[in-house]
Amino acid sequence: MMTQIYKRVALIGLGLIAGSMALAMRRAGLAAEITGYARSEKTRKVAAEIGLCDKVFDTAAEAVKDADLVVLCVPVGAMASVAAEIGPHLKKGATLTDVGSVKRAVIDAVSPHVPDGVHFIPAHPLAGTEKSGPTSGFAELFDDRWCLIVPVQGTDADAINRLRNLWIAMGAKVDEMEADHHDLVLAVTSHAPHLIAYTMVGVADDLARVTDTEVVNYSAAGFRDFTRIAASDPTMWRDVFLNNKDATLEILGRFTEELFALQRAIRTGDGDHLHDYFTRTRSIRRGIIEAGQDTDVADFGRIKG
Amino acid sequence: MMTQIYKRVALIGLGLIAGSMALAMRRAGLAAEITGYARSEKTRKVAAEIGLCDKVFDTAAEAVKDADLVVLCVPVGAMASVAAEIGPHLKKGATLTDVGSVKRAVIDAVSPHVPDGVHFIPAHPLAGTEKSGPTSGFAELFDDRWCLIVPVQGTDADAINRLRNLWIAMGAKVDEMEADHHDLVLAVTSHAPHLIAYTMVGVADDLARVTDTEVVNYSAAGFRDFTRIAASDPTMWRDVFLNNKDATLEILGRFTEELFALQRAIRTGDGDHLHDYFTRTRSIRRGIIEAGQDTDVADFGRIKG
Repeated sequence: MMTQIYKRVALIGLGLIAGSMALAMRRAGLAAEITGYARSEKTRKVAAEIGLCDKVFDTAAEAVKDADLVVLCVPVGAMASVAAEIGPHLKKGATLTDVGSVKRAVIDAVSPHVPDGVHFIPAHPLAGTEKSGPTSGFAELFDDRWCLIVPVQGTDADAINRLRNLWIAMGAKVDEMEADHHDLVLAVTSHAPHLIAYTMVGVADDLARVTDTEVVNYSAAGFRDFTRIAASDPTMWRDVFLNNKDATLEILGRFTEELFALQRAIRTGDGDHLHDYFTRTRSIRRGIIEAGQDTDVADFGRIKG
Repeated sequence: MMTQIYKRVALIGLGLIAGSMALAMRRAGLAAEITGYARSEKTRKVAAEIGLCDKVFDTAAEAVKDADLVVLCVPVGAMASVAAEIGPHLKKGATLTDVGSVKRAVIDAVSPHVPDGVHFIPAHPLAGTEKSGPTSGFAELFDDRWCLIVPVQGTDADAINRLRNLWIAMGAKVDEMEADHHDLVLAVTSHAPHLIAYTMVGVADDLARVTDTEVVNYSAAGFRDFTRIAASDPTMWRDVFLNNKDATLEILGRFTEELFALQRAIRTGDGDHLHDYFTRTRSIRRGIIEAGQDTDVADFGRIKG
């Protein structure tokens, strides 16, 4: 049963998200043809070999030619130059979207390069893993995850609906959000947690009095959870922080304030404060499990047996 | 094939660790009889119903009578009073051990109550999940995880070896460590990460400008990983922090210092610093996977499909 939504889809940047989109679109027959482009020759070669999309081109301009939907799947810091490159080659009536983790900066970077008659609709699927590169995608990545669509004012409603339907047909739930609010929400649910995880792993790596072997061997006591997030793609994350400065720094400021309060409770032996705090945080996890956003199996189900 | 190591084992405190020990001992036939005690009547009732151990007693004194091995599986803050209670009832030649996440404070709390002729051998299995209570245990919890034994000076070598063999037969790898070093290593690999996770979850819960529904729905972007750890038992963790103050505060101080350096890199737009840092932290995860301490499957394998 084909439920084709776009005739030709072009994926610019061929990593985890593009690869997963290609597989999710094929799973449901959502596009007649999928083209692709990546800056790195090696990535293009691997993508062609594994058939990530139907045709891999050597330039972004060729890849977007005649495409009804163009998806920018590059790090946030590369959006402006890619948009400048493809702008002149976009088909009238086409939709241009992206999957970047930051929205205000992407809107500012891409908008100037969008020709009249092209619908630019920023979006952000809240899904991913610590793996990156053209072979890391899988069709189920977006199942039951949210995709936030962040339309700029005056965007054609039909074009938005079509993109929304694509994400739903790829397994996602869709919500609309304003760009600045998106960036604040993601600073809480994604950007600050990533920076904190990177920091904790860096500290452990750097302690003279505890060996790396000890850190590695005894990581199952909690630390290893942080290392998964801290193994995420360095370029992608550098660009996220550089392009969502204000919101990330605001949340980190709140985090530090709260951490200091808990440190003081430890120092002064205020067990009630600690116990109350640790009891309150339990309920958020229950909410996440009830909302279908995580597994309730102990230890994420990674323990065998 | 029975490979009995102790005739009678008494478990004091009947939560995740005690329940998992009982199942792991049964799996390999390591004890002829397992007795148990918990302070809460409800816990004792549930433990008796599910057959967590062979016999559940209403007092700790009865549970440890004639036991060859007594395992304290209570929160660190309860160790002193439990040790005082059972001390007079311990059999000569018996081994008394514990599973507490802190070792110096437990040694100080328990040692005064250990009668002559009883071998007190502190230990700490580095295994657990976010679940707690008598029904949360499972036989595989210790498989391929480390158990650190922290002997006090002058302890009988045969008694240490016997306890070591028990842990190995329950699936664990065993190492010996000095108490203060244990507490520092665990501050890095467990205590600081838990406090940081609790803090991040508390901050998210407390932001006026982002709703709880948003935090819950959009948690798959990273945040949800923190909520697992932050759903751990509040009493256990309160006691850990109150009893490993110095090492935890030292590591948190290092963490804050490093976090400030990264915040400054974000503020000043120092992308190279961020990229270098994020690249370095990747290698620790590789080490953890090679050491068999975590799964290499994307997203801890929790994505279906």
